[in-house]
Amino acid sequence: MNIKEEVKKLKTAAPFLAASTNEQRNKALTAIAAALRENADRIFEANRQDLDNAEKNGVAPAVKKRLKFDEHKLEDVTAGIEQLTSLADPIGRTMLSRELDSDLTLYRVTCPIGVIGVIFEARPDALVQISSLCIKSGNCAILKGGKETANTNRVLFGVIYDAAVKSGLPENILLQAEQHNEIDELLDCHEEVDLLIPRGSNKFVKYIMDNTKIPVMGHADGICHIYVNKAHDTEMALKVIIDAKTQYTAVCNAVETLLIDREIAEEFLPKLKAAADKANVELRGTKEVTDIIGGVTIDESEFIEYLDLKASVKLVSGVDEAIAHINKYGSHHTDCIITTDDAAAERFMQMVDSAGVYRNCSTRFADGFRYGFGAEVGVSTGKIHARGPVGLDGLVTYKYKLIGNGNIVADYAEKRRQFHHRDL
Amino acid sequence: MNIKEEVKKLKTAAPFLAASTNEQRNKALTAIAAALRENADRIFEANRQDLDNAEKNGVAPAVKKRLKFDEHKLEDVTAGIEQLTSLADPIGRTMLSRELDSDLTLYRVTCPIGVIGVIFEARPDALVQISSLCIKSGNCAILKGGKETANTNRVLFGVIYDAAVKSGLPENILLQAEQHNEIDELLDCHEEVDLLIPRGSNKFVKYIMDNTKIPVMGHADGICHIYVNKAHDTEMALKVIIDAKTQYTAVCNAVETLLIDREIAEEFLPKLKAAADKANVELRGTKEVTDIIGGVTIDESEFIEYLDLKASVKLVSGVDEAIAHINKYGSHHTDCIITTDDAAAERFMQMVDSAGVYRNCSTRFADGFRYGFGAEVGVSTGKIHARGPVGLDGLVTYKYKLIGNGNIVADYAEKRRQFHHRDL
Repeated sequence: MNIKEEVKKLKTAAPFLAASTNEQRNKALTAIAAALRENADRIFEANRQDLDNAEKNGVAPAVKKRLKFDEHKLEDVTAGIEQLTSLADPIGRTMLSRELDSDLTLYRVTCPIGVIGVIFEARPDALVQISSLCIKSGNCAILKGGKETANTNRVLFGVIYDAAVKSGLPENILLQAEQHNEIDELLDCHEEVDLLIPRGSNKFVKYIMDNTKIPVMGHADGICHIYVNKAHDTEMALKVIIDAKTQYTAVCNAVETLLIDREIAEEFLPKLKAAADKANVELRGTKEVTDIIGGVTIDESEFIEYLDLKASVKLVSGVDEAIAHINKYGSHHTDCIITTDDAAAERFMQMVDSAGVYRNCSTRFADGFRYGFGAEVGVSTGKIHARGPVGLDGLVTYKYKLIGNGNIVADYAEKRRQFHHRDL
Repeated sequence: MNIKEEVKKLKTAAPFLAASTNEQRNKALTAIAAALRENADRIFEANRQDLDNAEKNGVAPAVKKRLKFDEHKLEDVTAGIEQLTSLADPIGRTMLSRELDSDLTLYRVTCPIGVIGVIFEARPDALVQISSLCIKSGNCAILKGGKETANTNRVLFGVIYDAAVKSGLPENILLQAEQHNEIDELLDCHEEVDLLIPRGSNKFVKYIMDNTKIPVMGHADGICHIYVNKAHDTEMALKVIIDAKTQYTAVCNAVETLLIDREIAEEFLPKLKAAADKANVELRGTKEVTDIIGGVTIDESEFIEYLDLKASVKLVSGVDEAIAHINKYGSHHTDCIITTDDAAAERFMQMVDSAGVYRNCSTRFADGFRYGFGAEVGVSTGKIHARGPVGLDGLVTYKYKLIGNGNIVADYAEKRRQFHHRDL
């Protein structure tokens, strides 16, 4: 397959999809959910092949769990699609109406971004979620999933694409890339592709960011922090830290670094150590920390994203030092303060430069479903366009529509007419 | 000057500026306007040196006009600053308040982007506008202006920076770069700089886009189109075309290509030719066009951004062909349909993939002042983040604030608690 030629077809189809109505897009989504249910047996059969191959190739059990697409997963994704149909149309929303003059009116109206490339991990449900989010938001999408679910993806993609087109949406609005080398071809399509959303390992996301002129939305590192302020509820602090570290360790929103106020270190650290031991979490820390609770001594430059039952610990002198550490060593993902002091919380939440700034709750809440976005296409740690978990809102842009009656700039430049700029 | 070291100071100052109140930022702006007036003589003297140098170096009169900073320009920029103080605070605005659960509340709140680098043409008023927009929006800024106004810029920058800091804003919130080689050093600061806004020639903007990992907002080409639909008012069409072409030719929002419905060509083209001749505009066109009105025959692949009293002309069979041409050959800046047909206008404005889609008015309206944004830092033809003329709105991003009471994800994952997602 020549990716560039195929992607050009998507670019041509994009304005037609952009002109579709919410009713047409919802009808397609309903048809897709029905088609997925009708083709359940074919999908499960393809998934069995993927699981057999995973077994043969000795894929780790934790990964195999993600590959699985069964009755339960089908129910989840079709329920997700139906939820999407109930959401308001993200496109065609008027954000600004302004009379520039009596016969010259400006509108800022949301519209799809155009053509979006999403490269995602081996999880069949991700293919369904991403394609349905793109359809709802009127975007053409290139989908490249992990090779471990190639068989399932192929069947899912075929069912989704056929149902979408049969229900009346334009052809060539979705494209599946299957070969790894096609990713490099895709990176070269900056004239056709408006946005890339890579999901996966840090190394992979960095590779994408460094090798394309297409704007990239996503996150490489996820070094989340919890800072325990001197004014705090110890029981709450320990509960939140253990949840943020252990509820699911392999994800970007798990906590990796704990910052503790120096004033409370003698009292707090032994309790933290006891809670960590109970949860099988290994604490590493700067010398000040290990002098009190033992363990491996590391320098703050060695604080990493463990994605494991390990955490780094450092002492700080108050909220400002915590903020400075997070802004320097963090990854602008999600960071939390545990405190009963409103002023400290306010300062932390205003000055920490991250997509999520939390008070007294687990960093693991940073997720599109938990935020009530229906689903997410990814999490962005960039500061341009969408930030944090990205749902439908992050898949739209806007255009300015200006409607006149033969208005010319010379009349205003030469003061024959004047703007009055009145918001409607 | 070591740019990287200096830019690091801005990154450190950024959270402090982000935590400033609208009142503090307005106070600084008022102080800046007063200081500019107080130092008028020093500023004008420096500008005289720049004008003398321009004279010696044989700078073109049109360019020299831009270099000039006199009483009138000072009045304009100080009035602009005072207008900014009257605008609502762009940061700290709550865009979403949602109870995820009875004791867990999510807010999406606007905040500054952080550190922004703006590289702009030799126009002293641009330095004042850009720095005041950045201060109002709580962003640290690196300012690099054209070398032809180096003396004026140095004095203006000093006056602005001193007034801002004296009024209470943090130090190191603004940095002036003066040497051209410092631009390359700046391009390498992707860990410190959040956004680059280059203004200037296509070649220069493309160079920036191709040589940095920092997100870039701006536009290279500005190939704007006017499409004359068969259902139209001829007098209006000619008036709008001549304004869009001649009111100011050297700018990105001037029209470059005219698309005319084939059905009306025989009648419309001679009238267009007469109006163009009267305005000293040279029309070039495809063979079909020059067969009717003469002139240089060119292929549509030769349609360029003239920035001069020239325009390309092509015939199309209706609105869909016009849309396809614009989406293929345009630069996603601003494109206009001249029509009395509501359906044709609707289709054009929905399907043309540009920052500005106009009906019956000049493309020259694409401008922050004319849109009533107070001022603009640039025009974006990208589709990610801000689009079109970029004012204060485009200089902010948002963060999610989540406030809990010890909430942990395990309680929700294990169904002991449930999200209720209620917008407040």
